[in-house]
Amino acid sequence: LTAAAPDLRAQLRAIVGEAGLLAEGAAAVPYLTDHRRLYQGRALAVVLPASVTEVAAVLRLCAAARIAVVPHGGNTSYCGGATPDASGQQLVLALARLNRLRSIDAVNDCLIAEAGCTLAQIQAAAQSAGRFFPLSLGSQGSCQIGGNLATNAGGTSVLRYGMMRDLVLGLEVVLADGRVLEGLSGLRKDNTGYDVKSLFIGAEGTLGVITAASLKLFPEVRARATALVAVADVPAAVALLAHLKTASSERVSSFELMPRLALELTLRHIDGARDPFGHPHPWYVLCELTSARAADALDVILEEALGGALEHGQIEDALISTSERERQAFWRLRENIPAAQSRAGASLKHDISLPVSRLAEFLARAAPWIETAVPEGRLIAYGHVGDGNLHFNVSARSAGEDAALLGRAESVRRWVHDLVCEFGGSFSAEHGIGQLKVAELERYATPVELAVMRSIKAALDPHGIMNPGKVLRFGAAENP
Amino acid sequence: LTAAAPDLRAQLRAIVGEAGLLAEGAAAVPYLTDHRRLYQGRALAVVLPASVTEVAAVLRLCAAARIAVVPHGGNTSYCGGATPDASGQQLVLALARLNRLRSIDAVNDCLIAEAGCTLAQIQAAAQSAGRFFPLSLGSQGSCQIGGNLATNAGGTSVLRYGMMRDLVLGLEVVLADGRVLEGLSGLRKDNTGYDVKSLFIGAEGTLGVITAASLKLFPEVRARATALVAVADVPAAVALLAHLKTASSERVSSFELMPRLALELTLRHIDGARDPFGHPHPWYVLCELTSARAADALDVILEEALGGALEHGQIEDALISTSERERQAFWRLRENIPAAQSRAGASLKHDISLPVSRLAEFLARAAPWIETAVPEGRLIAYGHVGDGNLHFNVSARSAGEDAALLGRAESVRRWVHDLVCEFGGSFSAEHGIGQLKVAELERYATPVELAVMRSIKAALDPHGIMNPGKVLRFGAAENP
Repeated sequence: LTAAAPDLRAQLRAIVGEAGLLAEGAAAVPYLTDHRRLYQGRALAVVLPASVTEVAAVLRLCAAARIAVVPHGGNTSYCGGATPDASGQQLVLALARLNRLRSIDAVNDCLIAEAGCTLAQIQAAAQSAGRFFPLSLGSQGSCQIGGNLATNAGGTSVLRYGMMRDLVLGLEVVLADGRVLEGLSGLRKDNTGYDVKSLFIGAEGTLGVITAASLKLFPEVRARATALVAVADVPAAVALLAHLKTASSERVSSFELMPRLALELTLRHIDGARDPFGHPHPWYVLCELTSARAADALDVILEEALGGALEHGQIEDALISTSERERQAFWRLRENIPAAQSRAGASLKHDISLPVSRLAEFLARAAPWIETAVPEGRLIAYGHVGDGNLHFNVSARSAGEDAALLGRAESVRRWVHDLVCEFGGSFSAEHGIGQLKVAELERYATPVELAVMRSIKAALDPHGIMNPGKVLRFGAAENP
Repeated sequence: LTAAAPDLRAQLRAIVGEAGLLAEGAAAVPYLTDHRRLYQGRALAVVLPASVTEVAAVLRLCAAARIAVVPHGGNTSYCGGATPDASGQQLVLALARLNRLRSIDAVNDCLIAEAGCTLAQIQAAAQSAGRFFPLSLGSQGSCQIGGNLATNAGGTSVLRYGMMRDLVLGLEVVLADGRVLEGLSGLRKDNTGYDVKSLFIGAEGTLGVITAASLKLFPEVRARATALVAVADVPAAVALLAHLKTASSERVSSFELMPRLALELTLRHIDGARDPFGHPHPWYVLCELTSARAADALDVILEEALGGALEHGQIEDALISTSERERQAFWRLRENIPAAQSRAGASLKHDISLPVSRLAEFLARAAPWIETAVPEGRLIAYGHVGDGNLHFNVSARSAGEDAALLGRAESVRRWVHDLVCEFGGSFSAEHGIGQLKVAELERYATPVELAVMRSIKAALDPHGIMNPGKVLRFGAAENP
């Protein structure tokens, strides 16, 4: 922390109390670094308001004094979205104490939670009411729903239930000047004016502070069937996705693609991992069907669909899990890829998405280029291919080549993102912009898109105090 | 048409050609009246551009000359959203000639259509590619997708597939100053900046002109089961909805509630309608399950669920249709309610929505009030209750009482909408605001919501030329 003017600390203390104002020193450290340790910031102060009224009062104070505010949730951003800059002139506003579950209405399939609730807390609350909240992320034990909303989080059930945006009925937001926008609707249908709430979802705290949300609930999952499928190439995987969506009537909840190389890394670096097939295959798909109807014979549906595909030569082999233990072993092969990759050495990562119909063609262009242009790296492209989302990563061939690989980060990113753009894809499918990808957004968004975003920013945050430096450069910094 | 300055007509003709500029006289009449005949406007001119470039040039011209522009689709608004005012100073911009289907990608489940395509044209294009576009409305033969987008249309499949907003991947929009916002994305996941497209959906042409959209497609419906269920009261209907959603794993695509009185009106006024039950019941539910999997035994699921409910006394009786003819007869009982109502005489209509959990309590409050306060009317509340959407209508008891009933329109609307507001509901669930409900929005939106909407309007349309007088009063008219 920087030495804030003593009267600012006094004013903040008057709003949030002793418990809501972090002491200067070590306690503040976790709020000043992002979890990937890409950024190290400083701050005027770290406040933890305990109510919407307190958030509003802090914002009024900051608006009057033109103090920049950095909203901070569970600190799991991949893009430094919740970390202050190095100036020491920004205030960190952490939502952790706004963590009440305000209400749950199982009949209306709706739950109202404050921004500081962890995702796991919300999943558990839904379950205890016999309902299901589908958002699911690796960081669900620590990420907060306010951050999930601010970044429009994705995760492993997007194919079936959509992104965070699709799971929201309404928001409560404190605006840059401290006014409170009250919109905690429980309605499925409401055509009364502009869809203001959508602006704040995915804006990463640059337009206001989300303090609570009204979320959609679903029937509990009561049946599940999981298969690991071996395919010859990416077109075969894409064809299988279309086939399964129809054959299961859209009960496909996950459809994850992995190349042989990813499996090999996992087999080599992760204890207890083993190849469930007798011999190697070029690509694997992990797919799962789920249903709220316990009697739905999902394993029969999966068996029929995969049996037909095998007969017609559309897939090379398939295994349907026959126990929960086996199902978890399949999932561990997928979930351990990032850990295996990081044990294997350095890697260059890209969170891209493409139209599903162009995935194969994209990879056919990109793979040979990586092969030639990045001799010290190997392509490992895997991910939520059901949504067109690929983690397009390049791993070092050996530990000795880490530095050489990392030295190419900039040029590889440029080439990959340029190709993604040519294919109508996105350079940030689910991780957002934060401070990491501001320049990428400026490069790939059209001038009109950028101008519209800036005019909305100017309308809702005219003094530019909301999370400056994230998503958009604005005002003085606009033409750096 | 008013006598437009001859040079304006010449400038417009230079942009859209002879075919794109309506002659003054009778040809323009359909563009100057809404289909409910609530409003009769005049216009400077009616232009029908045939390309985005032409729309942009018209907007540039109008922005420079500060001419108001009224976007016009299939003219099926219930709220006068596409009708110019009486000043004769507004330009009608009809999208009917922008009616190309630009592309269809069955593998990516995505279709790109121009704003002037009718909804039926899009449904047919999806079907011819073996896919399904779920938006479905009574006016689908004439309403245009641009209007469906601008009003965030609802319809009969919202419960399963969501509103128009939920079916959009991207938009192409001409802004108030003629710039073109190009956003025809085919991506399911894209977290790169603000969700600008959502602003234009439901803005009813007050922020820009939608010229094309990228829409989501789904697997074709291949199995269907339909039942007409008799229930004692509204709580029983709501409980049945929750039960069916779980029992069918969310394959409920329609869930429509009707009171006995609605059925009686239909039996009296519609030829060939007959009561499928042996004796009267207080309420009826028409529910339908659908699936993309032909082998899904939806009738078995429905029979099991309804059989159990009957045994436990949760429903009074149930009939599952055994033929397409019978299914259509069930649907006609529901679909003929508006026609039966209008043959029976005048009625007061309210398009409201409520949290599903509060529907019964709302009706328990509202029904006795109507009984007492509106002696010449009878309450007929029916509709898409699966989404919490009720058509809360009051019909004249006899033709002789039409005038007395209509005389109460204002006071009944006020009381009903005030109660809806008290219950956390919406006074316009799916029909939007247009010019009809501007004052209602001013009454029921919070001051902060209105201020945010106005600041967005000012940011995107600073001169207030886009469809003025619709949704929001703005600028000079803001404080009437």
